[in-house]
Amino acid sequence: MPEPPIGAARRVLADGRDDLLVREEPLLLVVHGQQLLTMRTPGRDEDLAVGFLLGEGVIARAADVERLEFRPGDPTASRADELHVSLRSPPDGTVRAALTRTHEIRSSCGVCGSADAQAILERTPPLLPGVPKFAPALVGRLVSALQQTQELFARTGGSHAALVARADGTVLGSGEDVGRHNALDKAVGQAARAGHDLAQAIAVLSGRAGYDLVVKCLRVRIPVIVSVSAPSALAFDLCAAAGATLLGFARGDRHEVYCGEQRLQR
Amino acid sequence: MPEPPIGAARRVLADGRDDLLVREEPLLLVVHGQQLLTMRTPGRDEDLAVGFLLGEGVIARAADVERLEFRPGDPTASRADELHVSLRSPPDGTVRAALTRTHEIRSSCGVCGSADAQAILERTPPLLPGVPKFAPALVGRLVSALQQTQELFARTGGSHAALVARADGTVLGSGEDVGRHNALDKAVGQAARAGHDLAQAIAVLSGRAGYDLVVKCLRVRIPVIVSVSAPSALAFDLCAAAGATLLGFARGDRHEVYCGEQRLQR
Repeated sequence: MPEPPIGAARRVLADGRDDLLVREEPLLLVVHGQQLLTMRTPGRDEDLAVGFLLGEGVIARAADVERLEFRPGDPTASRADELHVSLRSPPDGTVRAALTRTHEIRSSCGVCGSADAQAILERTPPLLPGVPKFAPALVGRLVSALQQTQELFARTGGSHAALVARADGTVLGSGEDVGRHNALDKAVGQAARAGHDLAQAIAVLSGRAGYDLVVKCLRVRIPVIVSVSAPSALAFDLCAAAGATLLGFARGDRHEVYCGEQRLQR
Repeated sequence: MPEPPIGAARRVLADGRDDLLVREEPLLLVVHGQQLLTMRTPGRDEDLAVGFLLGEGVIARAADVERLEFRPGDPTASRADELHVSLRSPPDGTVRAALTRTHEIRSSCGVCGSADAQAILERTPPLLPGVPKFAPALVGRLVSALQQTQELFARTGGSHAALVARADGTVLGSGEDVGRHNALDKAVGQAARAGHDLAQAIAVLSGRAGYDLVVKCLRVRIPVIVSVSAPSALAFDLCAAAGATLLGFARGDRHEVYCGEQRLQR
């Protein structure tokens, strides 16, 4: 029997048949002693960590990370996988505050109390206005490209996916994970670690565009967000206030333009 | 123009048309001074709170809640809606620990370090073995019933849904929300506040069955979980270890039985 992909695990169903299920396991992220535990699909934890730290505003660029050290866990001892992150400059007050805030943000699955679009945007860098320009036909091509990266989904039906691309269609990074956030973190982390500038990039999401995914994009200055499904009202408000372009229900050659239509070539 | 449902907000798209988007806004849950911030779709916050506290093991029954007091927020002052919860017995060490653990669990989006199925199950009450018995044909009927509750989804395309029912098809509770967890919390909270025993109930989920949703079900002793999509490997392991019945890809009259087939009448 062939080995399953790293993100999948084999289980025996009630009728005795084998099936592949998406793995969902904890990862302890340790940044200079500060710990964050997250559930994720194993594989590409380094991309996940860098994308996560960028998306949460803990670091400003991938080069801020000096070293990533993976230490495998031990399921029989209930010990999770660990990824230890060393930053180039030991965390100062600002970084520690960002890490603590990250913890608070995640603990709330929210926005630390001040939840209006303007308050969130005060902590995100400005986008480049008017770029990239892209043709409407690119959207369908990028959604197809996303589907082609979904190897884990094809095997398990249980994973989300995200992709980061240039306006010429070049894929800069992609990710699959049981968690929507993680899939985006992996895609962003891969692109950033390869040295790509994201300020003219397009993010494509396999699921809905919630505020959390939008904030992750805006923090790394991605100005165009394409979702195959619906945005939330807060996600819309964030994109509109930031001057970002938000597309939803992108399926085949159809999509809905929610805001930021100045980047679309007509 | 008719008023949108409470969970939806009207926005003007790039082409000038109006559209309804699912609302995604913070709620500050205050339990005897301990605060938890969560994003949710407004509406039925009381059901959400009770379902959440049950699902996290903070309370054992809805009657443990003495009073729920909603205090509307002020978006212009960046102040979130608040729901203040008074428990019948002031929180003792156990409840405080559970609340703190809840915070840790949510902060990690994880399982506080010990992530194997057995460790999680040590904190969940036992299920009733062998009940309820249900006919395979019930599954399709319950999925149809779930779809019929999805008013917000029909208007916005952006919300998840959950339903809790008896094996005779009686719906005990349902919920819609931008968050999968919240939809289940609302359904469980509604059923529990109406005094229904969930130990012979069936939960139906509009999305995938991740470990977090499975744990919420097991904590309130729901022994049958039906998802319209895929389970994760950890969700499967949890259900198998707990003796729960897990069905996935429930669409029309088809479904996959992952484990716990003893409850299915053949």
